[in-house]
Amino acid sequence: MSLLVVGSIAFDAVTTPFGERERMLGGSAVHFSLAASFFGDVRVAGPVGEDFGEAELAVLHDRGVNTDDIERVGGGQTFFWRGRYEHDLNTAHTEDTQLGVFGEFEPKLSAGSTGVENLFLANIQPDLQRQVREQCAEAGLVGLDSMNLWIDTARDSLVRTIAGVDLVFLNDAEIRMLTEEPNLVRAARAIMAMGPRAVVAKQGGYGAALFTEDGFFALPAFPLETVRDPTGAGDSFAGGFLGYLSAQGDGAVGDAGALRQAMAYGTVLASFNVEDFGTERVGRLTREEIDERYAGLRAMTSLETVSAG
Amino acid sequence: MSLLVVGSIAFDAVTTPFGERERMLGGSAVHFSLAASFFGDVRVAGPVGEDFGEAELAVLHDRGVNTDDIERVGGGQTFFWRGRYEHDLNTAHTEDTQLGVFGEFEPKLSAGSTGVENLFLANIQPDLQRQVREQCAEAGLVGLDSMNLWIDTARDSLVRTIAGVDLVFLNDAEIRMLTEEPNLVRAARAIMAMGPRAVVAKQGGYGAALFTEDGFFALPAFPLETVRDPTGAGDSFAGGFLGYLSAQGDGAVGDAGALRQAMAYGTVLASFNVEDFGTERVGRLTREEIDERYAGLRAMTSLETVSAG
Repeated sequence: MSLLVVGSIAFDAVTTPFGERERMLGGSAVHFSLAASFFGDVRVAGPVGEDFGEAELAVLHDRGVNTDDIERVGGGQTFFWRGRYEHDLNTAHTEDTQLGVFGEFEPKLSAGSTGVENLFLANIQPDLQRQVREQCAEAGLVGLDSMNLWIDTARDSLVRTIAGVDLVFLNDAEIRMLTEEPNLVRAARAIMAMGPRAVVAKQGGYGAALFTEDGFFALPAFPLETVRDPTGAGDSFAGGFLGYLSAQGDGAVGDAGALRQAMAYGTVLASFNVEDFGTERVGRLTREEIDERYAGLRAMTSLETVSAG
Repeated sequence: MSLLVVGSIAFDAVTTPFGERERMLGGSAVHFSLAASFFGDVRVAGPVGEDFGEAELAVLHDRGVNTDDIERVGGGQTFFWRGRYEHDLNTAHTEDTQLGVFGEFEPKLSAGSTGVENLFLANIQPDLQRQVREQCAEAGLVGLDSMNLWIDTARDSLVRTIAGVDLVFLNDAEIRMLTEEPNLVRAARAIMAMGPRAVVAKQGGYGAALFTEDGFFALPAFPLETVRDPTGAGDSFAGGFLGYLSAQGDGAVGDAGALRQAMAYGTVLASFNVEDFGTERVGRLTREEIDERYAGLRAMTSLETVSAG
């Protein structure tokens, strides 16, 4: 089934203890779409500037991502983010943000995109997310990400947007902040009371937890000895998750087994993403590597079976 | 098989957003021994003052814990700790510590204790831990906990002590601090290179991870809507873990399946501990409740099977 992501397409400048890149392809919609591309048809929508070229498009095309709804704005500059990570890679310090063409983005999706079956609203202003949701009226499975900025500055709009989606992806702190409830179990339930059927709590190096009406599931992050750049891990997680779930067909969001497997694919894609800068690792990833790591993750988290995993 | 814990026996004054207690039974050896008592014979060793009475001993005796090596020091005062937790319960702020009789503690174990088969060195000064280890020469399975204070002030001694144990329990930050290695996988391996066969990384509300020479395993914390007092969670985890492992007989530390089950029992005991202040919840706990929550945890963490868990 087709899957559309609307979000940022960016150039990132990133410094970590393991190296730096001055200008590399990034953005939530890019990381999401590359991760999701291993499971089925993916379309990406968002604005770019005149500085966005064939080399960047090629990264997406090489993974089969449809870029018809990437809107090139004449005279504009692509969204730019500069960040630095400290020793433990847990926290990104933003050093510069230039909205560029994103400052005046108004989603106008093509017929190919408004007809998609599944949709991910990556982290953009919640009014824009809701406009996209309304344009994709037929989408059966809709996921959403957001951030502390919108909880602070546009909470009412965000809550209205959340009411129209099936799955919410937020980190622990954002879940608590949005609901003003320090207990994560109660906070996740409060978000489900707004409308969604499931909440995924992203927990960085600790993994992720899934809350549904009648269940809880959690997976650790895949243990890695080499983590070079965490940028895009959350979007890669969501891409693996929704890419897999979308491929399971109608009703997958109500299938507890499919949701758990989606958690595992999200974990696997996020783990590859952080092994190198930007899109470099996922850009050269194979489905065989994904399946191998999925099997390893299953072995590492099973109380029943024991392998060398 | 018999299991001895040497560590602090204390009175705690604790304030959390959910209430306070001015003077309640606590201490690492107490929390450990109560948790371990559900799986087999447990002995506790450590000093108390004249203020430690029959009511406190009764809590241990009610769970069948052998207190012959609790040493009452004439004229002394029991170790006292006062702490306060903030809204999210993640961090304890120490407001007062009175070492009392613990300031001059020199372990002199009885024959009943020096002959134990398994041993847990709770968080005390590493020279003392090593003295205990040497007195219990026959112990086949030895676990150790420590803290940032000893890594700061007695690192060489701690490393020598770690060389003589099988299992190390530390939180993530302590593992990184001890090894000066920010990557947790590499840091855990560095600790195993000191001697131990396994490292358990305690991760607070996120659960715990197990590192062995050829494997990795992780479990989330059991999801709870009510957490009243996290004091003693780590020691309850270690007590459930080592209590279960000790009951599996010789060689259990080399049995990957037994280690994973021990992780789950540790998780379960820690989860009960935090549901009420001090020892209140574990003091009234039943084996049936433990088994029920273990089954729930298994259902919640399995990629294979799906239940309502």
